[in-house]
Amino acid sequence: MVKPKILAFAGSTRTDSFNKKLIKIASIGAREADADVTIIDLRDFQMPIYDGDLEIKDGLPSSARKLKDIMLAHHGLLISSPEYNSSISGVLKNTIDWVSRQSDGELPLACFKDKVAGLMSASPGGLGGLRGLVHVRAILENIGVMVIPNQVAISKAHEAFNLDGTMKDQKQEQQVKKIGTDLAQMLLKVNS
Amino acid sequence: MVKPKILAFAGSTRTDSFNKKLIKIASIGAREADADVTIIDLRDFQMPIYDGDLEIKDGLPSSARKLKDIMLAHHGLLISSPEYNSSISGVLKNTIDWVSRQSDGELPLACFKDKVAGLMSASPGGLGGLRGLVHVRAILENIGVMVIPNQVAISKAHEAFNLDGTMKDQKQEQQVKKIGTDLAQMLLKVNS
Amino acid sequence: MVKPKILAFAGSTRTDSFNKKLIKIASIGAREADADVTIIDLRDFQMPIYDGDLEIKDGLPSSARKLKDIMLAHHGLLISSPEYNSSISGVLKNTIDWVSRQSDGELPLACFKDKVAGLMSASPGGLGGLRGLVHVRAILENIGVMVIPNQVAISKAHEAFNLDGTMKDQKQEQQVKKIGTDLAQMLLKVNS
Amino acid sequence: MVKPKILAFAGSTRTDSFNKKLIKIASIGAREADADVTIIDLRDFQMPIYDGDLEIKDGLPSSARKLKDIMLAHHGLLISSPEYNSSISGVLKNTIDWVSRQSDGELPLACFKDKVAGLMSASPGGLGGLRGLVHVRAILENIGVMVIPNQVAISKAHEAFNLDGTMKDQKQEQQVKKIGTDLAQMLLKVNS
Repeated sequence: MVKPKILAFAGSTRTDSFNKKLIKIASIGAREADADVTIIDLRDFQMPIYDGDLEIKDGLPSSARKLKDIMLAHHGLLISSPEYNSSISGVLKNTIDWVSRQSDGELPLACFKDKVAGLMSASPGGLGGLRGLVHVRAILENIGVMVIPNQVAISKAHEAFNLDGTMKDQKQEQQVKKIGTDLAQMLLKVNS
Repeated sequence: MVKPKILAFAGSTRTDSFNKKLIKIASIGAREADADVTIIDLRDFQMPIYDGDLEIKDGLPSSARKLKDIMLAHHGLLISSPEYNSSISGVLKNTIDWVSRQSDGELPLACFKDKVAGLMSASPGGLGGLRGLVHVRAILENIGVMVIPNQVAISKAHEAFNLDGTMKDQKQEQQVKKIGTDLAQMLLKVNS
Repeated sequence: MVKPKILAFAGSTRTDSFNKKLIKIASIGAREADADVTIIDLRDFQMPIYDGDLEIKDGLPSSARKLKDIMLAHHGLLISSPEYNSSISGVLKNTIDWVSRQSDGELPLACFKDKVAGLMSASPGGLGGLRGLVHVRAILENIGVMVIPNQVAISKAHEAFNLDGTMKDQKQEQQVKKIGTDLAQMLLKVNS
Repeated sequence: MVKPKILAFAGSTRTDSFNKKLIKIASIGAREADADVTIIDLRDFQMPIYDGDLEIKDGLPSSARKLKDIMLAHHGLLISSPEYNSSISGVLKNTIDWVSRQSDGELPLACFKDKVAGLMSASPGGLGGLRGLVHVRAILENIGVMVIPNQVAISKAHEAFNLDGTMKDQKQEQQVKKIGTDLAQMLLKVNS
């Protein structure tokens, strides 16, 4: 049995990002289900905005190369994505676009191959980022990632968290943890 | 009767972008229908990747402020969007995210208010960027833009153009021009 | 100036359908904006489930032929669509599929040509049918209908209405009426 | 180890349906991967179009009850869906809507619980039904089905098959078989 290794990150870079908070909570659930979880911050993997000329001139940015290697060393992705204008955030899309590029003799999309993902979102609005998740889910599946159906969208996110990062609503917190647990359990099965 | 003013740009910044070529062709159609067309290159409006902390610290980037003002001075948007990983390009999404932010006492989304848009795409693949347009269309409509139903997706874009920027297939070229014409004619009606 | 003629119907057939109630309210808004509104009930246009063999054998069902003629005599569509399993209802989809078929020397999709539509939805859930509208909107646009961006999704619909069919929340009622008004005004412009 | 049991059907009922042909081919792939496959024809499970009043009056149609029981006895779904007006077919949507209803003390969506699905489509057009699959995939995932990312859309379907039901393009036939194989292998893992 292979212990599942999960890479977890938010699709926003703001220091107090609600989605970073969700990632911490869901990671607890994943660890309780016996997965190793690596939490990263996309702020530590800054990339220029993708431009084909830039790629030809300089190749992949070093941060994209580094993130690709980290992804290759994990089985699953735990992503909490904010909703910007009813869709994926620019930073998450741009990151996906860079790491999806072929480099160093790898196949394109190598770092997404056989990955399983769990999704969640948080937003101050009433829909919790649900429309953004529709696009994030479609993008991941189109590049070969299997996304577990269970997902959580936390509405009114500015009122949802305690100062210590826990959630005010215990039931909601369990739902978020469950995304991590479900992902870990699916990985246990898929990689067995 | 108000002469329609259309802002036209590609969702990619590469110098030889297929989508930049489409923008030129569709603009001819719009001008033939008596619209003023301003073609811009998003490379001239470089913005950092959106980050909430950065916005609080520095406000809108000057290029976003400038683009917002240009958008406010036009009635319609003519957009040719590449498809990156089955969705919108990072540069187009990031641009939309910045200009959609409230600033200087304006309402949020002010620069999208009452806009009408025409869409097209080009990609080397067999679907021509069609899946990307699904997301671009949904995003624009969710922020209040009316998108004309007629759209064009040019597949095998690397084989579609002559060296002078015209298209090898005359019928396809007419379809692209028609996006510009249809947009201009709709604006004539909507703003009358 | 052509007086706009709007065909209005719900995407559900249940007698006490929340969506039928919305149609009545939005129709008031359309009439206030000087449109003629014809409200129909899809229960009066029953069709078998589409099957290609059936079409070859019997042609269009008479109810589909009748509905097509009614659509051809109107400029706009006002549709309130329930959400079944996060998408369009079977009855609405089946109706669209039948009337979209070519018949009697008409072009396919003739009854959708140059149509403008306004959308709304109601559901007992917390999202008000919003995910269903995403599919309804995409379907209509793909068959050439221009859909106005403004839309309304009424959540907790079982608690939203008074016995006389008015809405408990005056502001919400105004939003629903506004779909009708916006559609009528757009038609006035588009058909001028 | 549990031998995977897969229920396979097309989303169209026409006798010579391209999607029925795909189901047969993909089923070979699933059987080669050691799954039991039950192929059914939705024509044998005719249901009235869903109507809430009808449900209250008569409950589930007997064909829906029967299909539900068959689904409960299988682990996976292999679905080939035609594209009607860029979306799911009415017959497939209506079938999903009926079987998703609660009945006989079961939880709602019981027959979709823990299901894994593989998707394909065929259409005479150039996109092969790809846009329809976007909606089918979203619907299934929203009701809790895990859909494998790999999918196949056969364009120009009227030219794709030999008289004996095999495909003219061997590579394409392998891709279709692989949907069955991938589904069977995923079920082997998930149910182990």
